[in-house]
Amino acid sequence: MQLTLHTDYALRVLIYLAMHPNQRVTITELSTFFNISRNHLVKVVHNLGLKGFIQSVRGKNGGLYLSRSADQIRVGEVVRQMEANFHIVECFNPQKQGVCPIQGKCKLTSLLCRAKEQFLKELDGTLLSEVLLNK
Amino acid sequence: MQLTLHTDYALRVLIYLAMHPNQRVTITELSTFFNISRNHLVKVVHNLGLKGFIQSVRGKNGGLYLSRSADQIRVGEVVRQMEANFHIVECFNPQKQGVCPIQGKCKLTSLLCRAKEQFLKELDGTLLSEVLLNK
Repeated sequence: MQLTLHTDYALRVLIYLAMHPNQRVTITELSTFFNISRNHLVKVVHNLGLKGFIQSVRGKNGGLYLSRSADQIRVGEVVRQMEANFHIVECFNPQKQGVCPIQGKCKLTSLLCRAKEQFLKELDGTLLSEVLLNK
Repeated sequence: MQLTLHTDYALRVLIYLAMHPNQRVTITELSTFFNISRNHLVKVVHNLGLKGFIQSVRGKNGGLYLSRSADQIRVGEVVRQMEANFHIVECFNPQKQGVCPIQGKCKLTSLLCRAKEQFLKELDGTLLSEVLLNK
């Protein structure tokens, strides 16, 4: 059971920005610090921008910063927004509907949905600012 | 966020056996019913046997059956036993220790551990027998 690397990296980017609240952070800086490929980070940062978590300033002293303060971002919100899907087992995938012959005779989907909600609820209870150890 | 196909198939095998409590079920029957490759099912069934969930009888009328009744198997137990790992993000993996430079400054691991436990706790609350719709 795991989250995608995309969500993993998104969390790291947000944590780094939260650790440097008064700076404009560049993708190069993130790439060097985390030793993560620039190309991968470009996609993550683009998506974080689309989802409203970060903003950027262009130019010589430009860079990325959090759209909201770290105590206004819930970890659960980040995971819900960044994770491509929550197809915990195959029958969650709309493209696989009808593939499993016990679909309709099995209550696993609703059980796993409830379990997923419990997972996310736990993450909802923590703010990005609380993930930093010095808080 | 997803479970491995191995765990997904293991759950389906157990559900099928629970739906046919008085039969000896063959891998060929499971493979045909679910349209899952025989090779993949052989691995899943082997692991289910190792973990004590199923037993097999050899011979002409042989086949697989549940080691315990379906109302004595918790779904959470199956997922805990069958899922290869719970490396929700990279730093959970012992082989990736020290790779992330904010490890030790970030409380994400303990938060995700708690979230994982909430996920599994929800599954612990349901018996295999309760996953069948006619129960």
